[in-house]
Amino acid sequence: MTRTVPVVEQILSANDRIALQNRSEFDAAGLFAINLMASPGAGKTSLIMETVKALKDEFRLAAVDGDVATSIDSDKVAALGVPAVQINTGGACHLDAAMLQAALPELSLPELDLLVVENVGNLICPTGFRLGVHRSVLIASVPEGDDKPYKYPGMYQGVDAMLLNKMDVLSAFDFDMDYFRRGVEILNPGLTFFAVSCKTGEGLDAWLNWVRAEVAAFKGAAAGYEIR
Amino acid sequence: MTRTVPVVEQILSANDRIALQNRSEFDAAGLFAINLMASPGAGKTSLIMETVKALKDEFRLAAVDGDVATSIDSDKVAALGVPAVQINTGGACHLDAAMLQAALPELSLPELDLLVVENVGNLICPTGFRLGVHRSVLIASVPEGDDKPYKYPGMYQGVDAMLLNKMDVLSAFDFDMDYFRRGVEILNPGLTFFAVSCKTGEGLDAWLNWVRAEVAAFKGAAAGYEIR
Repeated sequence: MTRTVPVVEQILSANDRIALQNRSEFDAAGLFAINLMASPGAGKTSLIMETVKALKDEFRLAAVDGDVATSIDSDKVAALGVPAVQINTGGACHLDAAMLQAALPELSLPELDLLVVENVGNLICPTGFRLGVHRSVLIASVPEGDDKPYKYPGMYQGVDAMLLNKMDVLSAFDFDMDYFRRGVEILNPGLTFFAVSCKTGEGLDAWLNWVRAEVAAFKGAAAGYEIR
Repeated sequence: MTRTVPVVEQILSANDRIALQNRSEFDAAGLFAINLMASPGAGKTSLIMETVKALKDEFRLAAVDGDVATSIDSDKVAALGVPAVQINTGGACHLDAAMLQAALPELSLPELDLLVVENVGNLICPTGFRLGVHRSVLIASVPEGDDKPYKYPGMYQGVDAMLLNKMDVLSAFDFDMDYFRRGVEILNPGLTFFAVSCKTGEGLDAWLNWVRAEVAAFKGAAAGYEIR
């Protein structure tokens, strides 16, 4: 009698293999990691700064900032007194798992609870490269316009939560919130959504509570997360 | 006696070869072509619409709109009564010369004076792909922030003119105009610069006059343009 043993063969890209290695490092260290993506100027660094200010006494935080050039962002975050590593992509339009892997030795992972990775400002390319983190988050902003979910569907489909930033200037723009939310809902039904202003602080409590709950859930059981 | 004949061998990428073909088509048709690049939501389509409204009785205009998905932009432009062709890149983060070439048969080039190509909303990738046009133009916007030249130098270096849009909301943002302009000047000294609001019309006359002058100069002598 012949028995057939099912073999699940996973063909992984080189990037995905390294993403898995990053994930293993995070899980072994008990470190919850988020990939924060956005258009240029939507407020990634501002959100990281507000998050660090609010949570740095609760969690041991660090940030990795990806940029085409300069260390403007990581300098700002480091000024708040948490570890911040800059990745200069040298012109590349996204972070990939190898770039993140190369940055990790700069951080003492077992001494951290939460790592926020700020991707390069780009609504397209970062979606194609898993980093190995636990959650992907998008920050959009009112001035970008209400049609962005329709025009950049891949980004809106691939995230676990999103923020809409710069709510303080909503009235200065022709932004149809229903049209925007409808686009998000079509692409990513039930997506966790926060309307915020990093400038005024509006809405940030809900975001911070989400981060708290995510870190707590991860500390309870690190299994079951997609590779993001 | 041996004579040495200097051979200038140009190794062109496949994209550059097609860009040259596009350029030949434009020049043969007497058509001046612009590549308009920007971050998502900076105002590319708004600028094209304002330009079409203002100049469509002076010039025979058309637009090609590149987007990852949807025909939202080309529908808006077509509603103004000028030819508009949508290129859906199917997820790709930039236009390339072949995509533009594939769109050109949709237009009757000899019956046009000015073609505006709206690139995909992205401050990084479009800079790597010549389309074959005569001029590259960047439209930035106030809400993106004053640090963008420093963070996306390739984009700011590679253009022939730039606009800073959404000047109507300048006071609502912490935007240091001197810091921004200094960054632009370092990267692209003397760059033609227009501070505008596509919403209020502020500053658009200067932009429109630049377009008029560029088209007139091109009609005078089509030679001498870089391949953009």
